[in-house]
Amino acid sequence: MTEYEFIRDVLSAAAGRLSGGRTRLDNDVARLGGGLVVNVDALAEGVHFLPTDPLFTVGQKLARVNVSDLIAKGVHPRDGFLTLAWPETRPLDEAKALVDGLEADFRLYGIGLSGGDTISTRHDLVVSLTLMGELGEGYRVLPRDGARPGDDVWVTGVIGAGYLGLQAALNPNETGPWREALGHYRVPAIPDPALVGLLQQVASASIDVSDGLVSDVDTLAQASGVAIELSGEAVPLPVSAKDWLDRQDETGWQRLLTGGDDFQTVFCADSEHRKIIEDWSYRTGQALSRIGQVLQDGAPSIRVTRGGADVNFTVKGFQHGRVS
Amino acid sequence: MTEYEFIRDVLSAAAGRLSGGRTRLDNDVARLGGGLVVNVDALAEGVHFLPTDPLFTVGQKLARVNVSDLIAKGVHPRDGFLTLAWPETRPLDEAKALVDGLEADFRLYGIGLSGGDTISTRHDLVVSLTLMGELGEGYRVLPRDGARPGDDVWVTGVIGAGYLGLQAALNPNETGPWREALGHYRVPAIPDPALVGLLQQVASASIDVSDGLVSDVDTLAQASGVAIELSGEAVPLPVSAKDWLDRQDETGWQRLLTGGDDFQTVFCADSEHRKIIEDWSYRTGQALSRIGQVLQDGAPSIRVTRGGADVNFTVKGFQHGRVS
Repeated sequence: MTEYEFIRDVLSAAAGRLSGGRTRLDNDVARLGGGLVVNVDALAEGVHFLPTDPLFTVGQKLARVNVSDLIAKGVHPRDGFLTLAWPETRPLDEAKALVDGLEADFRLYGIGLSGGDTISTRHDLVVSLTLMGELGEGYRVLPRDGARPGDDVWVTGVIGAGYLGLQAALNPNETGPWREALGHYRVPAIPDPALVGLLQQVASASIDVSDGLVSDVDTLAQASGVAIELSGEAVPLPVSAKDWLDRQDETGWQRLLTGGDDFQTVFCADSEHRKIIEDWSYRTGQALSRIGQVLQDGAPSIRVTRGGADVNFTVKGFQHGRVS
Repeated sequence: MTEYEFIRDVLSAAAGRLSGGRTRLDNDVARLGGGLVVNVDALAEGVHFLPTDPLFTVGQKLARVNVSDLIAKGVHPRDGFLTLAWPETRPLDEAKALVDGLEADFRLYGIGLSGGDTISTRHDLVVSLTLMGELGEGYRVLPRDGARPGDDVWVTGVIGAGYLGLQAALNPNETGPWREALGHYRVPAIPDPALVGLLQQVASASIDVSDGLVSDVDTLAQASGVAIELSGEAVPLPVSAKDWLDRQDETGWQRLLTGGDDFQTVFCADSEHRKIIEDWSYRTGQALSRIGQVLQDGAPSIRVTRGGADVNFTVKGFQHGRVS
């Protein structure tokens, strides 16, 4: 059990007691009354970004890791509340760069900055964003447990950029297409917000890819009580992966599919929606790949095939890497 | 200009630009649609609590500094979202104590724990709580700018406990009634939530006492465009202040009125409401002191009298003290 899991269990138990069992904190976002949905994400220096990263990109990253959660759940972001914990040792004018980066992406995603708190810390720069979103008329928070036998499994963008980005951050002197990977590490590519409309129309279940594609699809499978099969060849990889993969053994490819922080959306949809989905992708330019399907039966599980055989994943799931 | 002021100005400017001038972040809480009100407060180790403080009390303090803001604005707290930034060097089982303390006070104030994020940090324990409150039917967010000539000025509880508490934290080996002061430092006494109903009934303006009584009343005066006179003798002090004041020069008393982190509520009310307010105080046991009045005219300002003369404050306003 990791540190995160221990603390999450403690928090979840407290939430359950406080609500008489109604709240379990096991979902990605919280639904309040009146179509309001809330998500919180925080980043810490030396853990989620390099102490030397330009703070403009830290502001953008904070916005995007949070926005991507709401998009994956079919929710439009609307109001942000920022906690800025600023080390007394860091030059003050850098705060402006961080706020500028946050503002740039808030503008991009149509979010207002409505409140927050600024405090001092002794060492670490920590930023936290509580992002409130609004469900459109007739919309629902897309569930984890709605996948049905026969559904297709789709994913936005590319998978593995999170893992490669962390490698680029850890190994700044490596050559190769590291700049693209580092770009994703600093300012993640996330789905187009227009995805919200498509998901609301076609998705039976969805989840953001944060723990790693295999782990997150497994979460969908377990929640929905279905067996899911992914075609390894169909999983879209970043351009920068090719050169890197040539220098790895078999586990390299596995790392891309199990690394986290991709900030993409994986969703299930009835196969009758294929044309709608492909047309939408063509029209918007948002890459969408059909990477698998929900099997007609079988115990809740995930299976990944590659070259006609099942992949036996020998690498562990991603832990947020410390990068200082 | 302090660090806080610089960053707040930067954030406020960004909020203004994002909202086309509608949001200025100069109020205490944010009003969203549907009677929803949001407040954020964060605490950092070595700045807002001692690294050696029991974490149960840190959980309580996080709840209370936030709840006190909502109460002062006439809002009932409802849903909390916690960011827990946990140092990799701190024993994990201490997280349970922090969550237990938070849960205890969430229970006391009827708050649910609805979401959040847990991350690692390299050094500092940082906790942030986004607290959503709900305005009762027909209620308003109590303004800063509603004080009118002739209004009485009232304050809950005692003033100076924040300053004394910090001294107790900084000087653990001092004798005297330091235990009470340290108690407020760790777990602030805040107004009874029933105050919300009274404020909604009688208050023309209100604010929480966070920067220091004099500074916060000045904020009310400036926002309302009125002159306010406080009677120094009427300002209620903590029991622990008496012994401490005996050992101080004249500035000791001034420090109590300008120190921050009292977490009480100061409000203005038409003098015709005196009986309602006194009856309410008697009935609930919540101490309320009438400490001054809004003058009939005069430039926006605050004046404090003591012993028949104006007090010339020679101490500066409170800065959050670093206590590590």
